[in-house]
Amino acid sequence: MMRIDLAQLSAFAAVVEEGSFEAAARRLHVTPSAVSQRVKALESRLGRVLVSRTRPAGATEAGQWLARYARQVRLLESEALSGLASGDVEVRLAVAVNADSLATWFLPALTGLADERGARFELHQEDQDHSATLLREGAVLAAVTADAHAVQGCAVRPLGRMRYLGVATPAFARRWFPDGPTAAALGAATTLVFNRKDALQSRFARELAGRRVDPPVTVLPSSVGFADATILGLAWAMLPESMARPALDDGRLVEIAPGRHLDVPLYWQRWKLASPLLDELTDAVVAAASAQLRAAKP
Amino acid sequence: MMRIDLAQLSAFAAVVEEGSFEAAARRLHVTPSAVSQRVKALESRLGRVLVSRTRPAGATEAGQWLARYARQVRLLESEALSGLASGDVEVRLAVAVNADSLATWFLPALTGLADERGARFELHQEDQDHSATLLREGAVLAAVTADAHAVQGCAVRPLGRMRYLGVATPAFARRWFPDGPTAAALGAATTLVFNRKDALQSRFARELAGRRVDPPVTVLPSSVGFADATILGLAWAMLPESMARPALDDGRLVEIAPGRHLDVPLYWQRWKLASPLLDELTDAVVAAASAQLRAAKP
Repeated sequence: MMRIDLAQLSAFAAVVEEGSFEAAARRLHVTPSAVSQRVKALESRLGRVLVSRTRPAGATEAGQWLARYARQVRLLESEALSGLASGDVEVRLAVAVNADSLATWFLPALTGLADERGARFELHQEDQDHSATLLREGAVLAAVTADAHAVQGCAVRPLGRMRYLGVATPAFARRWFPDGPTAAALGAATTLVFNRKDALQSRFARELAGRRVDPPVTVLPSSVGFADATILGLAWAMLPESMARPALDDGRLVEIAPGRHLDVPLYWQRWKLASPLLDELTDAVVAAASAQLRAAKP
Repeated sequence: MMRIDLAQLSAFAAVVEEGSFEAAARRLHVTPSAVSQRVKALESRLGRVLVSRTRPAGATEAGQWLARYARQVRLLESEALSGLASGDVEVRLAVAVNADSLATWFLPALTGLADERGARFELHQEDQDHSATLLREGAVLAAVTADAHAVQGCAVRPLGRMRYLGVATPAFARRWFPDGPTAAALGAATTLVFNRKDALQSRFARELAGRRVDPPVTVLPSSVGFADATILGLAWAMLPESMARPALDDGRLVEIAPGRHLDVPLYWQRWKLASPLLDELTDAVVAAASAQLRAAKP
């Protein structure tokens, strides 16, 4: 088996994670030229360019598998050391989380690990396609995603369903849906989309209309921005019910189709890696999800 | 002068904006094969590949200048038509906005245009480096950015200063800053960064410590997530004062260095294009900024 020099490996990993040779050098308390030499030595050893010399620097395609390996080694090493010493962990747990989970139920799941273990995190706010890529590349250890299909090397478990309600201000609903959410009205009233892949609003519109409708859209890549913009009357939108509830209760928002909703099942994908930290994180995430999400369908 | 066929140009622009030939076809009410033929005809006319056949599809480097031209043509055409007819606009105003502005003062600036002109928007949540690229490529017409340097073809004006305060929960401050924000404490207490380029926290830490410190960080790419995570006690962070104020007033947060702050000047960059819509948007943004931000330094 080919042995990889650990000093070279950690120089490589630091450059990829920090985004530059200078920042990697600061983290490792060595000079940038030492980092550069180690990375070059590793590249010539493996016969591949591993780091793209861009701003920020990143792993090349060949480097991505090595970055995954480096993260695994570092997590295990950090846990081994913390078993010997202080209990503090020296690693950032990298997790991808879909935007609506990040804006609603996810963050409280991290408080225990942060308080008791001193854990730090690297959160990626990503859509589900990108989450699978991040897991495969090893850029994250785990992900909250709507994708039930296990990424190779990962275990997947259901977290529950996030319920979305179609909401608007009373004034918006009166102006645009005087006869309710008809196909014609849905084809004319502005709705929000998070990005070009966000199909939630058009899926709901199609279910209400009984046929495909293409509502005019405002593109707004921010979960909390969705709630703000809807409350400002810019558009109707699908909001997670926990986010919509306060404004529904005090009358700033109304449902455009009371009694109708969309449920999005969410899953936890994590590397199959014998890591107590990742186990603890999994337990905390599953507990937070079961308290805040609707139960997964059996 | 070379004449560009407008049907070909709008097919090209629709593919780039919608991200696929199918979605472009739906928008233009033609078949995907008609869209494909028009794009190919334009490409052979100009002798360049203009669309990258990826998912989502996008403009190639050669295509980006054409995309900018197409947006200008469409904005002017839409305004010319609305002068003749209903007053409704058929175009999405594309604007890049830094995340903290989007989470605080920016969205209310859009309500007038949305209500009275039926305007729709395509908002990009971007850091300042990327905003300059989006302006240059013509992917956006205007941007709220911390970059005072005018992008070529754009006019720039100051909007005011966003003030940031260093905050934490009282329990976090007691645990990590028992003797105040000393250099040693700042080097040990977890802080938040939005992404790897976010230097606000380390700038503030350096000013407080009087020397460079590298605080351990949790990476959290969400403005409102910053406030949530800080209130949960995960870390200390720099929050826009308007976002921190409610939690400071009710005691959930305290300032880690009372009386100290960082001010970030913000600017409005917009294309130099004779467009009444863009003028209206500019007026609304400048008015919202002057109500919500601190006055720009003279």
